[in-house]
Amino acid sequence: MQKAIIIGASGYTGAELARLLIKHPEFELTGLYVSRQSQDANKCISDIYPQLKHLVDLPLQPLPEQLTQLAQQADLVFLATAHEVSHDLAPIFLQNQCKVFDLSGAFRVNNAAFYRTFYGFEHQHPELLTQAVYGLAEWNAHQIKQTDLVAVAGCYPTVSQLSLKPLIAHNLLDLTQLPVINAVSGVSGAGRKATLTSSFCEVSLNAYGVFNHRHQPEIATHLGTEVIFTPHLGNFKRGILATITAKLKTGVSDEQIRVAYQHAYADKPLVRVYEQGLPSIKAVEFTPYCDIGFVTKNGHIIIIGAEDNLLKGAAAQAVQCANIRYGLTETLGLL
Amino acid sequence: MQKAIIIGASGYTGAELARLLIKHPEFELTGLYVSRQSQDANKCISDIYPQLKHLVDLPLQPLPEQLTQLAQQADLVFLATAHEVSHDLAPIFLQNQCKVFDLSGAFRVNNAAFYRTFYGFEHQHPELLTQAVYGLAEWNAHQIKQTDLVAVAGCYPTVSQLSLKPLIAHNLLDLTQLPVINAVSGVSGAGRKATLTSSFCEVSLNAYGVFNHRHQPEIATHLGTEVIFTPHLGNFKRGILATITAKLKTGVSDEQIRVAYQHAYADKPLVRVYEQGLPSIKAVEFTPYCDIGFVTKNGHIIIIGAEDNLLKGAAAQAVQCANIRYGLTETLGLL
Amino acid sequence: MQKAIIIGASGYTGAELARLLIKHPEFELTGLYVSRQSQDANKCISDIYPQLKHLVDLPLQPLPEQLTQLAQQADLVFLATAHEVSHDLAPIFLQNQCKVFDLSGAFRVNNAAFYRTFYGFEHQHPELLTQAVYGLAEWNAHQIKQTDLVAVAGCYPTVSQLSLKPLIAHNLLDLTQLPVINAVSGVSGAGRKATLTSSFCEVSLNAYGVFNHRHQPEIATHLGTEVIFTPHLGNFKRGILATITAKLKTGVSDEQIRVAYQHAYADKPLVRVYEQGLPSIKAVEFTPYCDIGFVTKNGHIIIIGAEDNLLKGAAAQAVQCANIRYGLTETLGLL
Amino acid sequence: MQKAIIIGASGYTGAELARLLIKHPEFELTGLYVSRQSQDANKCISDIYPQLKHLVDLPLQPLPEQLTQLAQQADLVFLATAHEVSHDLAPIFLQNQCKVFDLSGAFRVNNAAFYRTFYGFEHQHPELLTQAVYGLAEWNAHQIKQTDLVAVAGCYPTVSQLSLKPLIAHNLLDLTQLPVINAVSGVSGAGRKATLTSSFCEVSLNAYGVFNHRHQPEIATHLGTEVIFTPHLGNFKRGILATITAKLKTGVSDEQIRVAYQHAYADKPLVRVYEQGLPSIKAVEFTPYCDIGFVTKNGHIIIIGAEDNLLKGAAAQAVQCANIRYGLTETLGLL
Repeated sequence: MQKAIIIGASGYTGAELARLLIKHPEFELTGLYVSRQSQDANKCISDIYPQLKHLVDLPLQPLPEQLTQLAQQADLVFLATAHEVSHDLAPIFLQNQCKVFDLSGAFRVNNAAFYRTFYGFEHQHPELLTQAVYGLAEWNAHQIKQTDLVAVAGCYPTVSQLSLKPLIAHNLLDLTQLPVINAVSGVSGAGRKATLTSSFCEVSLNAYGVFNHRHQPEIATHLGTEVIFTPHLGNFKRGILATITAKLKTGVSDEQIRVAYQHAYADKPLVRVYEQGLPSIKAVEFTPYCDIGFVTKNGHIIIIGAEDNLLKGAAAQAVQCANIRYGLTETLGLL
Repeated sequence: MQKAIIIGASGYTGAELARLLIKHPEFELTGLYVSRQSQDANKCISDIYPQLKHLVDLPLQPLPEQLTQLAQQADLVFLATAHEVSHDLAPIFLQNQCKVFDLSGAFRVNNAAFYRTFYGFEHQHPELLTQAVYGLAEWNAHQIKQTDLVAVAGCYPTVSQLSLKPLIAHNLLDLTQLPVINAVSGVSGAGRKATLTSSFCEVSLNAYGVFNHRHQPEIATHLGTEVIFTPHLGNFKRGILATITAKLKTGVSDEQIRVAYQHAYADKPLVRVYEQGLPSIKAVEFTPYCDIGFVTKNGHIIIIGAEDNLLKGAAAQAVQCANIRYGLTETLGLL
Repeated sequence: MQKAIIIGASGYTGAELARLLIKHPEFELTGLYVSRQSQDANKCISDIYPQLKHLVDLPLQPLPEQLTQLAQQADLVFLATAHEVSHDLAPIFLQNQCKVFDLSGAFRVNNAAFYRTFYGFEHQHPELLTQAVYGLAEWNAHQIKQTDLVAVAGCYPTVSQLSLKPLIAHNLLDLTQLPVINAVSGVSGAGRKATLTSSFCEVSLNAYGVFNHRHQPEIATHLGTEVIFTPHLGNFKRGILATITAKLKTGVSDEQIRVAYQHAYADKPLVRVYEQGLPSIKAVEFTPYCDIGFVTKNGHIIIIGAEDNLLKGAAAQAVQCANIRYGLTETLGLL
Repeated sequence: MQKAIIIGASGYTGAELARLLIKHPEFELTGLYVSRQSQDANKCISDIYPQLKHLVDLPLQPLPEQLTQLAQQADLVFLATAHEVSHDLAPIFLQNQCKVFDLSGAFRVNNAAFYRTFYGFEHQHPELLTQAVYGLAEWNAHQIKQTDLVAVAGCYPTVSQLSLKPLIAHNLLDLTQLPVINAVSGVSGAGRKATLTSSFCEVSLNAYGVFNHRHQPEIATHLGTEVIFTPHLGNFKRGILATITAKLKTGVSDEQIRVAYQHAYADKPLVRVYEQGLPSIKAVEFTPYCDIGFVTKNGHIIIIGAEDNLLKGAAAQAVQCANIRYGLTETLGLL
């Protein structure tokens, strides 16, 4: 059994990680941590997440000032922390031979300008940006096996890339017309915090971050092509539905598209490609899957991708990456 | 045209008042005010309530330090403010011959101990507690016509009392067994503010304030009998459904009950007593009505009452009281 | 007072029409009709729509077999019926000098092949297709004033066209790349009927009718350009949010776009163009407005349009067209 | 491995059973059946429940006319069928030495008049009514171990009885005043079918079955005392929250109440008694738990009980009973 800890365990993603890791057959959840300033410090996680009562009754410990001892007692560290916190914590755990699975954006793009523009800070660890592997599990398994720092892909980027990469890899898209990604996320994507924007009466359905959301460059970088990405907030708790419109190269057939998805995902248990029908939020909520379906007409394709933003878009993919890193079955503890 | 101002206009109740008063044929909405500390000060109300664009494009003015001039230019003042603010503002406006319609709890119960226990402060205006008329419009119209300070009834108390008062007035209930009021409110009842409790992902359905909600003594005082009142928060934006269980006196017939409601509400346009079926949230949301239905069996009665908490439970009842005060048709501007 | 009747009054759109017409100052609602087979026949409309109790307590009369007398007693007829019913009823009322406002798709497109392909029937009244005016109120007011048959625009087509037409009229879009319209509708768009698809537990968020929805050719015909239109069903009752992505012609500035919208809608009271922020469902639900906002970057534009599908997308626009037809203020009875 | 089949597998409860049984370590799910008339016959269950894709890809077989062979090949039969179907099927499977777990109401109450009045039919198997054990797992484990026919408790009755039985067993309630049970259920409680009542736009929050719901006598019979039970339909998919008000016997202390619950549930893993706070829907949805909390004042108690109606209120409790019947750990396959 490898010893795993979660830092930032009081957030929605942290709590999902706790729920998954507590019953993982190869990882032992040895500690939950929150920032020393957190008002949840020293509470039991099941006091703030009553659904975890009897399942995970561990305390949310304040993160110690000196991390060396903590790091030395852990094999895996899951960072469900804000990007600036992950940025500072990851090097310390890496120096102590931990495997780090960071769910923030702190190491996803190897480009200092990206952090300056979209995250508003000067990245201090360019060597880690080089070393980090982008945790899009279905595509980077080989590299994930060999790194100690996995930058788990973002929620929108996961569903967007899983939907588009097979078509780009098989050279089926006419990228002179930018793919248009419209995605709607449940409110849990905004995290567990008291803001007016995410208060019950304020949520309905609206676009936000139009043309300036930080997931656009994350997607574009790892796809290797520009896209137009428009996120929306919807009146549901969890899940993302992405509707992607793209132009096909002349003469591309449905069969070629099907082959491309088949080639990419036939042996990938957590991507479900639909032979008929299209994904919906209800098909993926509370599951670790990313679902994909498509329709074509007159040289265009509409791809519908769906995932649970807290699972395949965060916690489940992090555990999937950890399974891959340790040579375990990819879905261990997830199904 | 009487000149009306709203203080506390940035909250959900304040915005509903603005929407009602802007098209009221006899009241002219001359100003919207918020506290000087409000982050909404100097914004246009339709920037924070986009549904009001083109309808109410008035600025949210910071309340001036000296209120005399403001008071002298207003005929009606609607206080959609926190109880401690209403407590301090009402006397100033009254001194300047305004009619004051207070939607907070500051003047609803003529009992200093009530404020000490349930609101946590020492009431400074006992003479106003005596002078204030409780704004339960269908029951206190005569007194409302003669006062300058109306303490508009609370949201839960309105539906609870409108449901129970006819039966008590006709002496149909065996009150040795306390009526049990279970009510579920939409989240707007918590007001427009950023709290974790009212954030989208935290709301499901739960009881709160069990045995210690301040509306229990408000109900009990004005009903003249004790009740067991259990409020709940539900996953919807507006509306209250109250399910009330009570014991009937021996031999009371459905006909007697129907007569009691008929007697109370036959000429009250904003209470709809059902002859068949039972009220639901969808029947009352966005309407100024309180709906009432009932079923009896084996000496017990279940009464279902419903209202829009922001309308009959707040803004619409305040305007109804103002109409009554000025001798206008009760429903003017409401239907 | 002109006499107005509603046929198909038991549906969601019919009920909204009833709510609007009952308080219209120039139209007198003289009758509600449903099909003779309807299980709602002879019920009071407020028994199936309790929110209408005390407001509209009219019976849902079964449509008489002989319509002449009914037609002779009416000035305006609102057809909130299925397209095949409207197709058959409209000529009869027109022959009797009624003004007909049809909310179905039966007369929206002057093209027999359209009906064959997308509605599955052979249109029998080509002369009416020529005579009918497309009821997109802000764009066709002049023609609406002169016709007796208004084919009120569909819900998705209204918000889509109001968003795009000013840019096309001002020649600002590069239409060699098809505009991509992604729209999410509330469930009321599916009408009031018992289907598994619209049952509470089945609804989440999903695309449907991809590349084959009948509103695509309606939009394309009246825009005069092809579009890619993908409708979605969302977990809310009313409202449509449309996210439209298009390529701008080289060098088009935000100022030019703003001028185009200004030119189109400065004197149109029911379209609200945002100077800052973007529309959301909550901004338009229960209002007769269509709201529009936009953002541009790198030669592309994202337009967000929103409306209440039952109001600006159906009943309110029908009344708006009727107001225009009678030379009344466009918003009469709507605000 | 015991062989298990599910009859009525296309409903919400049947699908939950399939999800649980497919990964149960001691039961092998060998077949899913639906009625021969079902329009889902011969479909794959994951085509109608896409969330089950890759997890349960079994066909929904039409139930054969001759059941003997099917019965002989099964060890456990879960009947997620309508009560009249269960009534007819149970004897056949019992004759073939199957253990039958019936999730309908067909065998829950040993009283022919109950079926006549509340289910509208004449029960044909009085001997099975005698033989059947009521599947309220925490209370009847001893008898469940010894029967071949478990009548799994209903959804409302489960949470109601688990909340009340410890207090009645310890003689803490003054039952001369009837306990008042107000419960709100998610829409899945109505089953998977196309009805107007459960269509998305019709659901809000309303009471139904007031004073005549069939779960009232089920609760009263097994509690051994009358209760007033008022069910409500709420705008959420799954979960039941019950708010129970009762009178305590004079002098009963919180400590006595706590001891009663402790005594009943200390070794019952699927009931979680709260030491602080109160249950909510979000605490139990998608879990097999029943959660219970309480508050007392002035001789009255409010108990809040919550469960997932499809799990502890149906499928999970059925599996729990099966585990008990086979001498397995009660929670096997459930956590």
